[in-house]
Amino acid sequence: MSEITKVILDAMGGDHSPGEMVLGAVNAVKEKEDLFIYIVGKENAITEALSQYTYPKEQIEIVPANDEITCHDAPVVAIKQKKESSMVVGLRMLKEGKADGFISAGNSGALLVGGQVIVGRMKGIERAPLAPIVPTINGVCLLIDCGANVDARASHLVQFAKMGSIYMEHVVGVKNPRVGLVNIGAEEEKGNALVKETFPLLKECHDINFIGSLEARDFPYGAADVAVTEAFVGNVMLKTTEGLASALIKKVKEGMTATPISTIGAAIVKPQLKKTLKTFDATEHGGAPLLGLNHLVVKIHGNATNKEVKNAIFQVETFKKQDINAKIREHLVENAE
Amino acid sequence: MSEITKVILDAMGGDHSPGEMVLGAVNAVKEKEDLFIYIVGKENAITEALSQYTYPKEQIEIVPANDEITCHDAPVVAIKQKKESSMVVGLRMLKEGKADGFISAGNSGALLVGGQVIVGRMKGIERAPLAPIVPTINGVCLLIDCGANVDARASHLVQFAKMGSIYMEHVVGVKNPRVGLVNIGAEEEKGNALVKETFPLLKECHDINFIGSLEARDFPYGAADVAVTEAFVGNVMLKTTEGLASALIKKVKEGMTATPISTIGAAIVKPQLKKTLKTFDATEHGGAPLLGLNHLVVKIHGNATNKEVKNAIFQVETFKKQDINAKIREHLVENAE
Repeated sequence: MSEITKVILDAMGGDHSPGEMVLGAVNAVKEKEDLFIYIVGKENAITEALSQYTYPKEQIEIVPANDEITCHDAPVVAIKQKKESSMVVGLRMLKEGKADGFISAGNSGALLVGGQVIVGRMKGIERAPLAPIVPTINGVCLLIDCGANVDARASHLVQFAKMGSIYMEHVVGVKNPRVGLVNIGAEEEKGNALVKETFPLLKECHDINFIGSLEARDFPYGAADVAVTEAFVGNVMLKTTEGLASALIKKVKEGMTATPISTIGAAIVKPQLKKTLKTFDATEHGGAPLLGLNHLVVKIHGNATNKEVKNAIFQVETFKKQDINAKIREHLVENAE
Repeated sequence: MSEITKVILDAMGGDHSPGEMVLGAVNAVKEKEDLFIYIVGKENAITEALSQYTYPKEQIEIVPANDEITCHDAPVVAIKQKKESSMVVGLRMLKEGKADGFISAGNSGALLVGGQVIVGRMKGIERAPLAPIVPTINGVCLLIDCGANVDARASHLVQFAKMGSIYMEHVVGVKNPRVGLVNIGAEEEKGNALVKETFPLLKECHDINFIGSLEARDFPYGAADVAVTEAFVGNVMLKTTEGLASALIKKVKEGMTATPISTIGAAIVKPQLKKTLKTFDATEHGGAPLLGLNHLVVKIHGNATNKEVKNAIFQVETFKKQDINAKIREHLVENAE
């Protein structure tokens, strides 16, 4: 039998917590027997949610935590003061090595702070980037960094490129991933001061497949497998993508159902359209890893449903089996020393 | 009779030059008699294109220019050396006050450089931002700056906010436009160093309707009328929006025509869908003004068709009639001195 992967799941903090969190865990353990999941949060609510399902009981354990970090909490204060919150309890367990990864749909800022402060960065890693998988027209792209590390330096971006490349290759399974530097033009001399400083450094990295500048226009067309940028720009790209995709799909639906006749057409078109647009569904790929920490922390969407939770659990399993942190250490840290 | 608006149109440099440029000019003068258009470029090609149409001949004049700046030219070198290019000839005419505005579909970088170097910034204006109108789900938003002014300072962003507000109110016709600062969170303490420095300065501007941080996720939903940001971020937002919109619409079409049955549904749905998505069509609003120069320079898309050209010509007319530069001088420059 293969080695057990242990996952800590924050049951609280999401829009559909704890219901969808619990269901995601149940579906995961029903599908794979080499998983063990700690569900952290309010005991009664979790017990009640679990009682609705039949599942292998020996694979799930409830860890009580009476407090909760909400989306209204200030990140640094919350991590410091809410010691009994599900997020802090879960992150502490992770730090103590009780599991291979921690998954949360809660307050993003608090999770980023908690990851750095409680779990801690790997020795030699300067910043821990948040790296969501963003759907493109023909696949996915890892957008690194979308986290809280604003005002990054060139050396940080180089580390992001290497970590992102390792993750895409070994967790997502893209061979020799194309790494692009987000820029406002294709030429090497284009860009702001940070990009101009980073470009030649990436050119010198022989352990990644650097393809040069990536124009934002080509990003949705899948022009790169890893898009490297500092967090402010990455966050704006991610949020523009999410906002526009939902706005446009809303608009398409409105247009299709504007008249009784078009509504008939819409009904005919719907199954195929849904199938095609499914490839634009980020939840298929689990959550966004916070890379470069001593242990894996995964941020899932605030409105995550059980499918995203289950995929994030499987993502922790792949991360562990591929021993990503050992690979990061080998390519980044030993080189750096 | 009202005063004549004079427009200089660069016939070269676009994907459909000079054909669509010429047709745009022809349609504009057929619609409005208080317009006069100089079409600058290769004389034979323009004459031939014009010969296909009937139009009031006294409203269009060809200005010969034998050279052309292409998309492959390096901006600064091109502006310096290609003195007989349509772009340089046109910008020089504008500088000499021969017209109210210059429109080009050519090399963006060269146009930005030429605008600053040949036409020149208004006294007191620190940077000249490029401010495209971006469609949103229920209207449009002016995204300022998307130009070449990377690594901007807070004082630049304050000027962008004021110029953008004046433009939206008096050219686009949005009353008391809501001005948002592009940010990665809603709170005042969020953001990078530039945003944190700019936020309190904008709060103190009593001549604009500052609504605080604008999250990129809300931008496609029309949460602001003017989105203020530095050029690198603005360019990434603009290009992500353009790229994703075209990618998604391509995907929707693919989905709708994937099977014979869905293709029938697609045919039924198409007229309404087209109508709805038309509101997402940027060409309805002319081009992107380069603000803060001594005279108006307008950048239209490289693949602009006659409709965009015509709308850009009308945009120059509104800019002139509303005396935007006098308003900018009044609100920005006199306050600054």
